[in-house]
Amino acid sequence: MTDTRKVVEAFWACANSRDWDGFGALLADDVLYEIPQTRERVRGREAYVRFNAAYPEGWSVTIERLVADGDQAVTWINFIVDGDGQPGLTFFQLDETGKIARITDFWPEPYPPPPGREHLVERY
Amino acid sequence: MTDTRKVVEAFWACANSRDWDGFGALLADDVLYEIPQTRERVRGREAYVRFNAAYPEGWSVTIERLVADGDQAVTWINFIVDGDGQPGLTFFQLDETGKIARITDFWPEPYPPPPGREHLVERY
Repeated sequence: MTDTRKVVEAFWACANSRDWDGFGALLADDVLYEIPQTRERVRGREAYVRFNAAYPEGWSVTIERLVADGDQAVTWINFIVDGDGQPGLTFFQLDETGKIARITDFWPEPYPPPPGREHLVERY
Repeated sequence: MTDTRKVVEAFWACANSRDWDGFGALLADDVLYEIPQTRERVRGREAYVRFNAAYPEGWSVTIERLVADGDQAVTWINFIVDGDGQPGLTFFQLDETGKIARITDFWPEPYPPPPGREHLVERY
């Protein structure tokens, strides 16, 4: 049985080391990548490797949380550029051969606290 | 052993039905809730129930994904207000008694696709 956790750890390790051959080997031929916030989509291993390899250099990733459940997993990463980190949340679906078939990620940005609930929260 | 999946399903079911007693019963006394995007924090069961019960009415939640792993889980919900849905991503940590001890959520908003990668993606 596939160790989903190890596959996802390898995904981020390959990304960090720009090992695009190793990265591609983790993906299904017809991997489907989606960013719901921009409604961008990339189809297929070759296109998805190219999409990642083309991302402007200077970034690295640390895994903050990895939650794996059968053929699904989620990571909360810290995407670091020039020392500044941004959270990234990625959902993974593996196929029956243990390849990553579907990836959906989210890039939440800071926003001001909604007014009217200052008495219910503290800030950190 | 606690069924983390069932606890998290109950959390959203109680929220949807405004069953704040049932909701509170799922939480550790010292539950810690954080929203990294606003850097808001709520400490303790009573305060966290109040925070949720005070949220302006008209919302409901559907679970899009639930990934559970030991004492951790993640949900991707659709938070629906007046027919419009927004994704919410919530990380749960249970304590050794099966109560929810830590909740961290993210509310990613739509943003324009970054320029310069139109040739690498399609839109949906």
